[in-house]
Amino acid sequence: MKVGLTARHNLDEALEKAGSILGTIEDRAEVSVELDTASALGVEGLPLRDMSGLDLLVLIGGDGTILRTLHGLETPVPILGVNMGDVGFLTNAEPQGAEELVVDLLDGFDVERRDRLQASVRGENVPPAMNETVVITSEPAKILNLEVRVDGREAEHVRCDGMIVATPTGSTAYAMSAGGPIVDPRVDASVVVPLAPFKLSARPLVVPGGSKVEVELLRKGKRAKLVVDGQFVRELDEGDVIEFSRAEEPALFVKTWQGEFYSKVRQKLE
Amino acid sequence: MKVGLTARHNLDEALEKAGSILGTIEDRAEVSVELDTASALGVEGLPLRDMSGLDLLVLIGGDGTILRTLHGLETPVPILGVNMGDVGFLTNAEPQGAEELVVDLLDGFDVERRDRLQASVRGENVPPAMNETVVITSEPAKILNLEVRVDGREAEHVRCDGMIVATPTGSTAYAMSAGGPIVDPRVDASVVVPLAPFKLSARPLVVPGGSKVEVELLRKGKRAKLVVDGQFVRELDEGDVIEFSRAEEPALFVKTWQGEFYSKVRQKLE
Amino acid sequence: MKVGLTARHNLDEALEKAGSILGTIEDRAEVSVELDTASALGVEGLPLRDMSGLDLLVLIGGDGTILRTLHGLETPVPILGVNMGDVGFLTNAEPQGAEELVVDLLDGFDVERRDRLQASVRGENVPPAMNETVVITSEPAKILNLEVRVDGREAEHVRCDGMIVATPTGSTAYAMSAGGPIVDPRVDASVVVPLAPFKLSARPLVVPGGSKVEVELLRKGKRAKLVVDGQFVRELDEGDVIEFSRAEEPALFVKTWQGEFYSKVRQKLE
Amino acid sequence: MKVGLTARHNLDEALEKAGSILGTIEDRAEVSVELDTASALGVEGLPLRDMSGLDLLVLIGGDGTILRTLHGLETPVPILGVNMGDVGFLTNAEPQGAEELVVDLLDGFDVERRDRLQASVRGENVPPAMNETVVITSEPAKILNLEVRVDGREAEHVRCDGMIVATPTGSTAYAMSAGGPIVDPRVDASVVVPLAPFKLSARPLVVPGGSKVEVELLRKGKRAKLVVDGQFVRELDEGDVIEFSRAEEPALFVKTWQGEFYSKVRQKLE
Repeated sequence: MKVGLTARHNLDEALEKAGSILGTIEDRAEVSVELDTASALGVEGLPLRDMSGLDLLVLIGGDGTILRTLHGLETPVPILGVNMGDVGFLTNAEPQGAEELVVDLLDGFDVERRDRLQASVRGENVPPAMNETVVITSEPAKILNLEVRVDGREAEHVRCDGMIVATPTGSTAYAMSAGGPIVDPRVDASVVVPLAPFKLSARPLVVPGGSKVEVELLRKGKRAKLVVDGQFVRELDEGDVIEFSRAEEPALFVKTWQGEFYSKVRQKLE
Repeated sequence: MKVGLTARHNLDEALEKAGSILGTIEDRAEVSVELDTASALGVEGLPLRDMSGLDLLVLIGGDGTILRTLHGLETPVPILGVNMGDVGFLTNAEPQGAEELVVDLLDGFDVERRDRLQASVRGENVPPAMNETVVITSEPAKILNLEVRVDGREAEHVRCDGMIVATPTGSTAYAMSAGGPIVDPRVDASVVVPLAPFKLSARPLVVPGGSKVEVELLRKGKRAKLVVDGQFVRELDEGDVIEFSRAEEPALFVKTWQGEFYSKVRQKLE
Repeated sequence: MKVGLTARHNLDEALEKAGSILGTIEDRAEVSVELDTASALGVEGLPLRDMSGLDLLVLIGGDGTILRTLHGLETPVPILGVNMGDVGFLTNAEPQGAEELVVDLLDGFDVERRDRLQASVRGENVPPAMNETVVITSEPAKILNLEVRVDGREAEHVRCDGMIVATPTGSTAYAMSAGGPIVDPRVDASVVVPLAPFKLSARPLVVPGGSKVEVELLRKGKRAKLVVDGQFVRELDEGDVIEFSRAEEPALFVKTWQGEFYSKVRQKLE
Repeated sequence: MKVGLTARHNLDEALEKAGSILGTIEDRAEVSVELDTASALGVEGLPLRDMSGLDLLVLIGGDGTILRTLHGLETPVPILGVNMGDVGFLTNAEPQGAEELVVDLLDGFDVERRDRLQASVRGENVPPAMNETVVITSEPAKILNLEVRVDGREAEHVRCDGMIVATPTGSTAYAMSAGGPIVDPRVDASVVVPLAPFKLSARPLVVPGGSKVEVELLRKGKRAKLVVDGQFVRELDEGDVIEFSRAEEPALFVKTWQGEFYSKVRQKLE
């Protein structure tokens, strides 16, 4: 089995755990260590993008590490995320016992497929979102004027700080903060949640995962940004229409009991 | 084409419109008039349950009339609901021009399929719900203690007035009142929304349409009811577990532009 | 100092703690034990209503016990509530160390005054509410049609399951469940929160504590109830107007560090 | 009577209405026209700050114009705001008939006093807020880590986009967008509402108008801003504690029936 290994670079415990996992599996699998992690561990490494044909990617860190890694992967690889972060909603393993878990996975595992969202502006794609893509005011506290269309139908017209379009996976992230529902990741849907809508009647919207959602920047002179998973930022122009649809490539996660959705909701969010 | 016709009995305008539609189509189609409507109009009629092989059911009334009619239908029939109610979220035509619309439909129409929810208690089914089934305290303002499980996993444990399990169609009805999201009827999902949860962290939940949702009455001595679409009521006992799953028979609606979901949300709810 | 003592009758730990407190202070103060508590402890007792001139009332139980006791008091007495309930938001002491705390109080204490709400229907007062008075549908899941007026001005017109009018003290009880804000008990205000409003734009309302709030039952044929603090129930009639104003007599609580508002919010509600 | 007159400069209708009001009252009162408005009207003018001893300030524009004008006034003057904006929640007169209304006011009027909020950082005051002061992330979609204290007590600790501290007047502005309650302007209180809190249990808080609210920027390395009424912006530093208290000078508004609070809520927000 070909296994990739990467860790959050600025966190000693994450690097230490990476070293321990490497020590445990290096004789049982073909392990590639990501360059920065490798140099911290004093072993040979190569960039994530150059690891091809991986069967499993072991990642030690938090949600931010997973989101950044997903943005860096060329093709989908099943991820085991060992939680070393504040929340770790995307992770599916706890640090304690992670070595044994990885050894078990070398005998095979089930994979959970999670759809991602693809946004595009003026025909150009931004990186696909695991959690959400947000259209947001560039000047904090300055309101935007947005129209939302679902498969060509006007669904909302609202003045607000921004509009979140999230996957079910992202329903427990920024969309939740803005008042959105919690969506079981098995539901084929996207969640559209306005950020601070200046309208009493605004409400989160759940639309088909395969639908085309458009968000249009209506009023001139307002500056806005597109932010993907809190990682990638693109400036928007007046009148821009941002189109959202299902991304071609999903993300893949190893199925574990620690990654079970409802127990994470109860443990990490309440 | 075999057409059924029924109207809200206690509303003169509804009966009048039914008479006008009957006059317009009786020479062009085989029309069966529902018994009470028929007696009000002074024509021959038969009970809804005895109309077999209908191609279309024309119904004049509001959401309550549609919900009651759906509970009375043996097999699914495509419904054209002509709005004579307060809200009419389930209707798909306005009274003005309804005669011409029905004539047009005699040449054929598209059908929209809407899943319903089946609840059962101790192995006994209650009528399937078009909008929602609610587990609710029998004594207003007396709190229940409920556990919600989704496909066997504990998803929520909360003291509350009740728990709503709704279809996407019902997301704009009682579930909306309790703070649930608006769900596009094309999404294959159910919405689980607590009624007045005594817990800051309770949040609406969107689960797969095909999942099994269980609601358990945890504490002894509390009296509760099951209410289906605000029409059917069944008393519950201590320790009862109410199971929800997709109903075998969906409801069918005629596709019309007046029935388009997002324009109804904007017109009827804001 | 004249001290009254009462406990939740159906809870052994509460009665035991009452006995222990009685043993600790009976030589240092003039103690009257409430009749039912007394008979459980095997001592002499008298009904709460016959205890006059109390300087302090020690109560062992939960919020329900405090609410019931307040409804039974003829004149305001400073309360020390020792928490033996599920939540105990109204209590201001924990069981451990309660004996020492009561001894300390015999040397004097500060009193916190909490306004209550007085509701009346057709000129007749119901008992004043410490937490809230609710106008609520008598048939669960059957909607009411209500108008709310504040000092004569129409503030809301909404179809809903009910309307909660709460004190700041009650803002962490039923009003919170219905989506209301958390109100510091020092704010001179009432909170008006609709229960399951069938209207996207309904929102909790904070009005002056001294204002007159009226809730009118608009549509005929709907049965509704008035429920005070979950304890007292009165049937309402068609067209009834329920008037709310500040109650003449406030409730009094002993000021303790365990009763501090914000630490209770963080500990008991999150 | 000494009357000041100012209008939104970039709106022809506002300037036209100002000219019409000037023509109607210039023989009946001592009118000072604000410099920019004056030059647009071709009359003599003087800066707002140089108008002393005004009995009434007539302002034609929207909420933004009123907020900017309040920030420019040295001493409180009763304001008549003639609505030429999108919302006009702060205005108290409609354009039609405004001339006659102003003439009537020359015979006297009642004044409504509205408290403002004073924020300070490191001992330096920012301009007092009529609506709200917001602590907000400088980088859209990057979360802050904030602690809120009320009179020295920790009330909330939350990761969020920002924290709004609003007056009752501002409860229908940005605080409403973030999910806050509607607060009658006669209530002596402030509203504390988190912006997109990453926590299911966060809830709006209503605190005494006279209390000291502190918001502390907890985590290092995050950039934040203080924004007053959407008009004034100040950069914040790591570890800054922002203190909020009642401003010394309130704002004054002419009492009119068009300015009645509940009718504005129903007309402008639903």
